[in-house]
Amino acid sequence: MKHFEVIKTDPSCGARTGRLTTRQGVVNTQIFMPVATQATVKAVTQRDLKECGAECLLSNTYHLYLRPGLKVMEHFGGINGFMNHDIPVLTDSGGFQVFSLSKLRKITEDGVIFQSHIDGSTHYFTPEKVIDFEKSIGSAIWTCLDVCVKNPATRAEAAEGLRKTMNWAKRAKKHFLEVTKDMEEEKRPLLFGIVQGSVYTDLRKQAAEAMAELEPDGFAIGGLSVGETKPQMLEALQAAIENLPKDKPVYFMGLGTPEDLWDCAELGTDMFDCVLPTRNARNGQVMSEDGKYYIKNACYRLDDRPIDPECSCYCCRNYSRGYISHLYKAHEILASELMSIHNIHFLINQAHKMREAVAAGKFREAKKAFRERYFQDRH
Amino acid sequence: MKHFEVIKTDPSCGARTGRLTTRQGVVNTQIFMPVATQATVKAVTQRDLKECGAECLLSNTYHLYLRPGLKVMEHFGGINGFMNHDIPVLTDSGGFQVFSLSKLRKITEDGVIFQSHIDGSTHYFTPEKVIDFEKSIGSAIWTCLDVCVKNPATRAEAAEGLRKTMNWAKRAKKHFLEVTKDMEEEKRPLLFGIVQGSVYTDLRKQAAEAMAELEPDGFAIGGLSVGETKPQMLEALQAAIENLPKDKPVYFMGLGTPEDLWDCAELGTDMFDCVLPTRNARNGQVMSEDGKYYIKNACYRLDDRPIDPECSCYCCRNYSRGYISHLYKAHEILASELMSIHNIHFLINQAHKMREAVAAGKFREAKKAFRERYFQDRH
Repeated sequence: MKHFEVIKTDPSCGARTGRLTTRQGVVNTQIFMPVATQATVKAVTQRDLKECGAECLLSNTYHLYLRPGLKVMEHFGGINGFMNHDIPVLTDSGGFQVFSLSKLRKITEDGVIFQSHIDGSTHYFTPEKVIDFEKSIGSAIWTCLDVCVKNPATRAEAAEGLRKTMNWAKRAKKHFLEVTKDMEEEKRPLLFGIVQGSVYTDLRKQAAEAMAELEPDGFAIGGLSVGETKPQMLEALQAAIENLPKDKPVYFMGLGTPEDLWDCAELGTDMFDCVLPTRNARNGQVMSEDGKYYIKNACYRLDDRPIDPECSCYCCRNYSRGYISHLYKAHEILASELMSIHNIHFLINQAHKMREAVAAGKFREAKKAFRERYFQDRH
Repeated sequence: MKHFEVIKTDPSCGARTGRLTTRQGVVNTQIFMPVATQATVKAVTQRDLKECGAECLLSNTYHLYLRPGLKVMEHFGGINGFMNHDIPVLTDSGGFQVFSLSKLRKITEDGVIFQSHIDGSTHYFTPEKVIDFEKSIGSAIWTCLDVCVKNPATRAEAAEGLRKTMNWAKRAKKHFLEVTKDMEEEKRPLLFGIVQGSVYTDLRKQAAEAMAELEPDGFAIGGLSVGETKPQMLEALQAAIENLPKDKPVYFMGLGTPEDLWDCAELGTDMFDCVLPTRNARNGQVMSEDGKYYIKNACYRLDDRPIDPECSCYCCRNYSRGYISHLYKAHEILASELMSIHNIHFLINQAHKMREAVAAGKFREAKKAFRERYFQDRH
């Protein structure tokens, strides 16, 4: 059974549309996946997620493991039962969270010891244990535990992180095969390997080739969008994608802004996730086809228009900038709800526009048109 | 045109059902009105409010006047246009907020000077100005500026507060008639007078009689549920209701718990509002037919049941106690959204149960049945 099918590649660049079949349903690509760190996309109900067109969510193994804990996840039949929706979920490996959130982290050859950011308790992750955790979480797409190096990292640090990441990926794949060996092919989760290598293009090439040999179901690009320059990011991404098989999905972890999505989709990235739409919403920043802006600015006080006059989301169908501006300034929770819905819908809709552009064979024109409006700031 | 019609009075007590016709639509009574202090019921979308069965909302003149300000309210065509829904809104007079929230309050014969709780700016409310404010807000039911005395208050303090309240009510009524004189009867707002008198039954009687003479469209009972004992509250309420005309609606301001709603409806109260369902939700306390409880308690961690198995709200149709307990403990906004929806639905549903009980002529039995289950705490 082939889980991923490329539907069409744009004639002018690497952008492509596809269809990823998971045990929880089909995920059309390109796709933007809202982030449900703690088994909830912050401030958004499952009904609104569906209405936003969410086809896949990202959730964090590290967070779910710590709270509510795997016993709870198992009791409720996994994350879909727990959250009560049928949208496929991709779980990241915890590698990035151990790196960015936890205290007193110590990486050994075998795994990583760290202290919880919640209560300081000590925990130990290995590649095998993370596979077991993802089994308890019951997500549709699993990832292998990886080592995230800091940015900037020396070439030696990046190479050492990559070496461990690849060893761990082999162990994860082996354990994954054991854990899933009795599952029918259409019932088994998919496994994505994480391609590391920091900003070093030769390491990215090496990582891609080595990961391709492992034959996971897809490739996650990790360790980018963590502070490097935009050219560094795009070069590292390109070095990875060029050396990956074309018949499997490529997922850029933790990206990002709409312009970054367009740039990375152009190189052949299929899947994206980011906390940006919900986090920015809580800080009062919204996106529209005519640029991003802060809703609290005085000019929106008497503005009858929706956040984005072209948007069809629940927020834009029903509420004015003036009303939302008031809610935000009055510290009302509803402001976060409405702007989160809008921003998520906006990024999902960018992915839809990419698909349409590829279908029409006009990705570059569509990207150019997006950028021309978005950076004029004429909202 | 008669704006209020009593449909049926229970044979065993004062409980009754009715129909209040406002320019914004019909309000069936008994009714529980969710509170939209700052032009939003905290954490609840307008779609969810409708789905909860909300037929009337309470909003606060004091808050809307300070933020977003009356210019904004007028620009958006009043509170219904601003919030984007067609549910009638009752605005309170600001008297209670000036008393409870503002700094350096000074009551004169003419009105009240106070400092904003937001920025310390100085403002001056008079009975006439409050009527003008409510015109700008565009609510369906207006109230007259009143004086709220502290609790406990001496008889002399209560009598003095009542004297001012009645003088102000006369001025408010006079100004109301001027402001609305060119409106067709079905387009004019309704005016409710506020009956004060603290816990003194003779003052409550005097207040009711004096307010009845003014012939407002309805009577709001103010200055109760502010720290007095339950018997004091019920006696003061009864003293007021006994001396009010039976053909106009009675609204108890700022009540309350479900058991208080049943007790006061039994005496003939038609309308209720309170921040309790949303405030308690944000603190993790939910109501069910089997009692109230805190969702964070360990026993709910693996509980598959909805908050109230008999409830039909969006929250209870879709989410388990275990999931909501996790959201609450993880400080997720969605916890507040879901529990607010449930608690509002629960109190609105209590009013629906009261209507059914009156229709069946069995109010007291229904109240007894409610109490027997609610206070067993068997959730």
